[in-house]
Amino acid sequence: MSKPDYNALALKMHEAFRGKIEVVSKVPLKDRTDMSTAYTPGVAEPCRKISENKEDVYKYTAKGNLVAIVSDGTAVLGLGDIGPEAAMPVMEGKAILFKNFGNVDAFPICLGTKDVDEIVQVVKMLEPTFGGINLEDISAPRCVEIETKLKASMNIPVFHDDQHGTAVVLSAALINALKIVGKKFETIKVVINGAGSAGWAIMNILIDLGVKDIIVCDREGIIVKSDAENLWLRNKMVEKSNFEGKTGNLADAMVGADVFIGVSGPRAVSKDMVKSMGKDPIVFAMANPDPEIDPEDAKEAGARIVGTGRSDYPNQINNVLAFPGIFRGALDARASDINEAMKVAAAYAIASLVDESELEETFIIPYALDERVATAVAKAVFDAAVKSGVAKA
Amino acid sequence: MSKPDYNALALKMHEAFRGKIEVVSKVPLKDRTDMSTAYTPGVAEPCRKISENKEDVYKYTAKGNLVAIVSDGTAVLGLGDIGPEAAMPVMEGKAILFKNFGNVDAFPICLGTKDVDEIVQVVKMLEPTFGGINLEDISAPRCVEIETKLKASMNIPVFHDDQHGTAVVLSAALINALKIVGKKFETIKVVINGAGSAGWAIMNILIDLGVKDIIVCDREGIIVKSDAENLWLRNKMVEKSNFEGKTGNLADAMVGADVFIGVSGPRAVSKDMVKSMGKDPIVFAMANPDPEIDPEDAKEAGARIVGTGRSDYPNQINNVLAFPGIFRGALDARASDINEAMKVAAAYAIASLVDESELEETFIIPYALDERVATAVAKAVFDAAVKSGVAKA
Repeated sequence: MSKPDYNALALKMHEAFRGKIEVVSKVPLKDRTDMSTAYTPGVAEPCRKISENKEDVYKYTAKGNLVAIVSDGTAVLGLGDIGPEAAMPVMEGKAILFKNFGNVDAFPICLGTKDVDEIVQVVKMLEPTFGGINLEDISAPRCVEIETKLKASMNIPVFHDDQHGTAVVLSAALINALKIVGKKFETIKVVINGAGSAGWAIMNILIDLGVKDIIVCDREGIIVKSDAENLWLRNKMVEKSNFEGKTGNLADAMVGADVFIGVSGPRAVSKDMVKSMGKDPIVFAMANPDPEIDPEDAKEAGARIVGTGRSDYPNQINNVLAFPGIFRGALDARASDINEAMKVAAAYAIASLVDESELEETFIIPYALDERVATAVAKAVFDAAVKSGVAKA
Repeated sequence: MSKPDYNALALKMHEAFRGKIEVVSKVPLKDRTDMSTAYTPGVAEPCRKISENKEDVYKYTAKGNLVAIVSDGTAVLGLGDIGPEAAMPVMEGKAILFKNFGNVDAFPICLGTKDVDEIVQVVKMLEPTFGGINLEDISAPRCVEIETKLKASMNIPVFHDDQHGTAVVLSAALINALKIVGKKFETIKVVINGAGSAGWAIMNILIDLGVKDIIVCDREGIIVKSDAENLWLRNKMVEKSNFEGKTGNLADAMVGADVFIGVSGPRAVSKDMVKSMGKDPIVFAMANPDPEIDPEDAKEAGARIVGTGRSDYPNQINNVLAFPGIFRGALDARASDINEAMKVAAAYAIASLVDESELEETFIIPYALDERVATAVAKAVFDAAVKSGVAKA
């Protein structure tokens, strides 16, 4: 059977339904008593309670389960800066995944500005309404700046999924991959290709997991310090990597490496590069839709384990394994933040759902539709929030 | 049977459901094909279409049916400036009324700022996401300033319900009341008590309906020009009213009046004042929950027709008769504005649902739960949008 034409299907579906989300009532509205309870005069009573004690907003309103999916449309899928209107289908899609997998009520907020400070200001002003903020498809390094500023100034969790969702799921896959090849985080050599925001988040979680030896490359090869102002994020990555001071291109970096992680573009990696890696190479080629190396080529070149972002190959690194459960756990804990401990806990929770008995080269991570995942992630994230002192529930 | 304790019921219900709204999917999400159609890779196709033609956002996303209910919590019900968190129960209630009566997907946006320019800036930046803006429970005269600035700068309809919803429903009631007493808009004397934003909107729609003789009062009596900066809205009302230059208090104003309209506070009107009115007095005492005069007292004093904002008296002036249908019509027409013609059309549509055969002193306006209303209003508003040149659909 040939693969369905998803583009044509998607266009028809989006037009037929006029988008994908709707806002509905959780409460009955059938008669005058319902009206007087949900609206005036009864509604004044929860208003009064909240005005006396602001925390009661979590008790009497939907705030505690509402997440804003905020985008400016500057880095949508592989399409780039297509603007906030064109980003709407993705944000609506994200919203229904949030609901389906995490029972989180998520709402798209596509903003008509690209100004970092304006975006920060708007999102801060939305704080009374939402229990959490999911940043999405904002170009680097602006996204890192926006997230950093919001995390510093808001009392609700702020999470940039393109960074941390990817980092968490990749980590889960790597946790299980290392079990197969019998290696430890502390002693592996990792090459990350892509010095953007996803690379930055992956680097940070790997360090949390115990990795010491990371080399980061971009299109010009192993990254080095630069005076260019817009390369501040890359400079931060230089500081935390390549402690042996290697120089050269990606091929040079990959010689002897245990793990390749691609968050870059199609065909950045050759078979020869994979051949030059250490024993039992692990290759995560996550560029979408065309990976850094074709999984079959990687296998032929000796890769023991290969993962991609695609659903039509084994070991799909799919963010949907992370964000619904992470927010479910953070919201249930009334966490003020989604911190590193919570992300690491999420990674281990995802990894744990692949039983030792079923773990193999082509099955290191649960399927995207596995309904156990969000619950397991939520529990682990909840516990980590409590343990790390950011839970208020 | 005694009246239910709505306060207690409301508190229990809001806590049990943790608020009243949820964001759900309109499309199936059962298998990998659904996922690939609603999300990646299929979702890229509607994104691409919209990036090529921004108008397609109305074709492929929920934008065209999404309304933001924007408040800063400065004038909530009769409770005053209780803040954006405490305003959430009202905004959620409004959202479910929008959905229930107009099939409009409305979402509360309670903002953590009271600064007029900041509110204007935030709402403008939300334009890519929403098909319309409903302002709610913002204190006067700031609400008029915010609405005016937003209407001037946005391409989607902006509507402050506390002003125009009230004005439309009151107008509908007055249209039918005048039929009973056999008077015409052009020759009636109207007294409006309350020189805030609702009074301002009522005055404007009455002028659109043909009324020539309006006197406006506030706590100090018949309003006069002032040099105080914060009284600019009152000054605008002075310009459009009291062309005979009457002076005095509310009692003076009401002598010989045909219609009293109260958007003020409890017990502002005495039986003697009603007695001093012209033949067949019409009294709309809309202060909530305690009207300007008790309806029974007004009747005893000779009022022929009495309306209030309360559901436990006849002739309830309830905004829910207007806003769901007005937005339904405006969204269906892809109207760039909700203009005066559309509001007048809405008023006549509401009035028309009381058949001549059932029209009587105690039944001049349909019940709030009458399901025919929103459809009739939507049709009239749609037609008026087309006729007045603001429709794009």
